[in-house]
Amino acid sequence: MKTQVAIIGAGPSGLLLGQLLHAAGIETLILERQTPDYVLGRIRAGVLEQGMVDLLRQAGVGQRMDAEGMIHKGFELVLDGRRQPIDLESLTDGKTVMIYGQTEVTRDLMAARQQSGAITLYEARNVQPHDLKGERPWLTFEHQGQPIRVECDYIAGCDGFHGVARQSIPAEALKIFERAYPFGWLGILAETPPVHDELVYARHPRGFALCSMRSPTRSRYYLQVPAEEPIEQWSDERFWSELKNRLPKDLAEQLVTGPSIEKSIAPLRSFVVEPMQYGRLFLLGDAAHIVPPTGAKGLNLAASDVSTLFNILLKVYREGRVDLLERYSAICLRRVWKAERFSWWMTSMLHQFPEADGFSQRIAESELEYFVNSEAGRKTIAENYVGLPYEAIE
Amino acid sequence: MKTQVAIIGAGPSGLLLGQLLHAAGIETLILERQTPDYVLGRIRAGVLEQGMVDLLRQAGVGQRMDAEGMIHKGFELVLDGRRQPIDLESLTDGKTVMIYGQTEVTRDLMAARQQSGAITLYEARNVQPHDLKGERPWLTFEHQGQPIRVECDYIAGCDGFHGVARQSIPAEALKIFERAYPFGWLGILAETPPVHDELVYARHPRGFALCSMRSPTRSRYYLQVPAEEPIEQWSDERFWSELKNRLPKDLAEQLVTGPSIEKSIAPLRSFVVEPMQYGRLFLLGDAAHIVPPTGAKGLNLAASDVSTLFNILLKVYREGRVDLLERYSAICLRRVWKAERFSWWMTSMLHQFPEADGFSQRIAESELEYFVNSEAGRKTIAENYVGLPYEAIE
Repeated sequence: MKTQVAIIGAGPSGLLLGQLLHAAGIETLILERQTPDYVLGRIRAGVLEQGMVDLLRQAGVGQRMDAEGMIHKGFELVLDGRRQPIDLESLTDGKTVMIYGQTEVTRDLMAARQQSGAITLYEARNVQPHDLKGERPWLTFEHQGQPIRVECDYIAGCDGFHGVARQSIPAEALKIFERAYPFGWLGILAETPPVHDELVYARHPRGFALCSMRSPTRSRYYLQVPAEEPIEQWSDERFWSELKNRLPKDLAEQLVTGPSIEKSIAPLRSFVVEPMQYGRLFLLGDAAHIVPPTGAKGLNLAASDVSTLFNILLKVYREGRVDLLERYSAICLRRVWKAERFSWWMTSMLHQFPEADGFSQRIAESELEYFVNSEAGRKTIAENYVGLPYEAIE
Repeated sequence: MKTQVAIIGAGPSGLLLGQLLHAAGIETLILERQTPDYVLGRIRAGVLEQGMVDLLRQAGVGQRMDAEGMIHKGFELVLDGRRQPIDLESLTDGKTVMIYGQTEVTRDLMAARQQSGAITLYEARNVQPHDLKGERPWLTFEHQGQPIRVECDYIAGCDGFHGVARQSIPAEALKIFERAYPFGWLGILAETPPVHDELVYARHPRGFALCSMRSPTRSRYYLQVPAEEPIEQWSDERFWSELKNRLPKDLAEQLVTGPSIEKSIAPLRSFVVEPMQYGRLFLLGDAAHIVPPTGAKGLNLAASDVSTLFNILLKVYREGRVDLLERYSAICLRRVWKAERFSWWMTSMLHQFPEADGFSQRIAESELEYFVNSEAGRKTIAENYVGLPYEAIE
C-alpha cells in the first residue's frame, strides 16, 4: 500500500487531520488499534475553544455541533464560597467557548470520514513506523491477521500518550518535561440538568470541585481526590454529598442528583516532549503533551497541532514549501507551553496541595483574589480560557 | 512622660507616621535605638509608588523629592536577551513611579521632624512595651543613662524585622508565613551614569540582574548570587564583568563602570505575620512583613501601612471611631498579601533556582513570555508595579 500521509490513531486529532487533508485532496490512511466503539467509549473533554470550533467547521463537520452544542459566554470561579463570574465574551472582545463533548466530536468525524470514502483501518495491530529520517518512511502492522506494509510521505502520530508514535523516536532525541500532581479527579456523568448554566470551578478547603455539563440534560461533575484513591470508596451518595460540601450554599441547594452513568478517577499530570517531530514523523496532541484538565485545554491543544500540521502540509504539497516542515515543532511548542502554563496555573491555584506550607496557601489565595478582582487579571484568565490565537503559517 | 502615639523606630515609616500625625495635631514620641547617621547609612529601596509619593506630599515632605526625584514612566524586562518595555504610564492610565532613594526620603523626614519640634529620642536602649491589651499601654527604655517610662494611647511598631515590637507580642497570638529563597542579591552603588534611563530587570541563565539608579549620576546594580556567597569573592572587576555577561549586548557595551562606593549582599525572603496588631500595638512595614526586593515593594508597603494606621487614628481621635482599630490588620493584610504575591512572582519568574526541574524552568519562561506578549498580562505587571490602590478607611 501507498498513501501520502499515514495517520496513527483515529481519535479526534487523527480524524480531524484526516478530514482536513482529504478535503484538500491529500490522501491519508488512518490506523487505529482499537474498535470504533472503544474509541467512542472514552469520556473526555467537553469545552471547545473558538479556534477548534472554526477548524471543525472548516473540516465540514460543524453542523451537529452548531445545532446541539451550547455556546458559553462565561464561567464562574468560586473562592471562599463567593461566586465570581468570568465574563469571557466581554473580556475577550466577543470570544466564547462551545460545550460539545469529545465523544460527539469523534462521532461526527467518524461519520464524515466514512462518507468521504477515505480509509480508516480499525484494530490495526503492532503498528510500527520505519525509516523516519529517510525520504520514504513506511509503516508495518497487522490487520485481520494479515501483515501489511504502507509507504508514505509523512507520518502523523495522533495515537495518544501511550501510543507507538512517540515511542518509535530514539529516547536520546527527545527531552521530557513533566509534573505529577498529588491528586486526581473523580468524575461522574449523570442524566441530570446542570446545576448552573455555566461551568463552575470551586476552590474549597476540602478540595477542588468542578460543575460541568455535556448538554442541558447531562451533567459532568468532578471532585479533587487523593492520587491513589480507590473508586470503590465513592458511592453516588458520597459523591453528591461531598460535592454539596464544596459548593456555595445556593448552588448546593439547587443541585439535582441522580444515578451516575459513568464514574472514574483520572490522575492529573503535565507532560511535554521536545521536539514534537523526528524526521518525517510528527507528534500531535496527547502523543506529545498532556495537560491537567483544569483549563480544558487537552483536546483544544490537539486541535491547534492539527491546524499547524495541516497548514504546513498544504503548503508543502501545493507550493513545495518543504522548508516549513522543520518548523512544525517550534510553532506548536510556543502555543503548547502557554497552554501548559495556564493549565498548571489553574490547577495550582484551585486545588489543595497536601504538602503546601502556609505561605504557598496564602499566595494561591492572594493570586486568585488579585486576578479575579483586577480587570486585567480577569482578561488574562479569559483570553487563555477561550484559547490563544493560532500562529499563522507563512 | 505621656504621649498620644508612641512610635518605635525612626526609619521612614516611623518618621512618616509621626509627621502625618503631628500635622493632624496628634502628639507622638519616636524612639530609635540607633543614631541618625546609622539610620541614614542604610542603603535601601529607591522606587516609590504613586501612593507613597502622594503620602509624602501630604505629609509636607515632597519638595526635594519633586525637585530631584526622577519620574519613571516604564521599565524593561530582558528575556532571552530581548528587551521588552513595560510602559507603566500607558498600561495604567497615567500612573508612574518616582526614583528617589530611601536614604533621601529618611533625610527629608528627619529634617521635617526636627523643624516641627516633635521629639525623636535616638539611642533609646532596651525599649519595652507593656500592658498592650490594657486601656493605657506604656513603654520603658533607657536614654542617656536614665530609665524612662512613657504612657500612651497607642504604640506603633515601626522598628523593622528585628525590632522589639513584634517580639513583644506573645508568640501564640501570631501566625508566621515565610519563604526563604536559595539566593541573595549582591548590590553595588557607583558614581556612574545609569546604563539606561529606565530600570532593567534581566532574566538570564547565569542568574538575575537588575540595573537601577539613585540619580542621573549614581547607579545601583544587582546580581543574583548563591545564598551563602562570601562578598570577598566579588571584586568590582568581577562584578562589572558578570553584570555584562547577563545584559543584552547593546546594554553591556553602553555600561559605564567605576569604583563601588557601597557593596553588600542581601538575602531574599518573604515573611508575613498575622495579625498585624495586638491590643494597642500596631505593626507597620518590616516589623510585620518582608518582601524580596524584586518588585520594589518593601518601602511602599510600609507606606501603605502608615496610611492605613494614620487614617484610622485620625478618625479615632476626631470622630471617636474606635471600632476602626480592630480592622487595621485585616485592611493592611489584603494589600500586603497582594504585594507579597507580586514580589514572590517577580522573584520566581526572573531568578534561576538551583533545584528547579526542567518543567518549572519552562513554566517560568512561558509565564513571562505570555505576560509580556499579552496586553492584559503587561497590565497586571504594570498595575502591581505602580502599586495597587490604598483601601479607603470608612
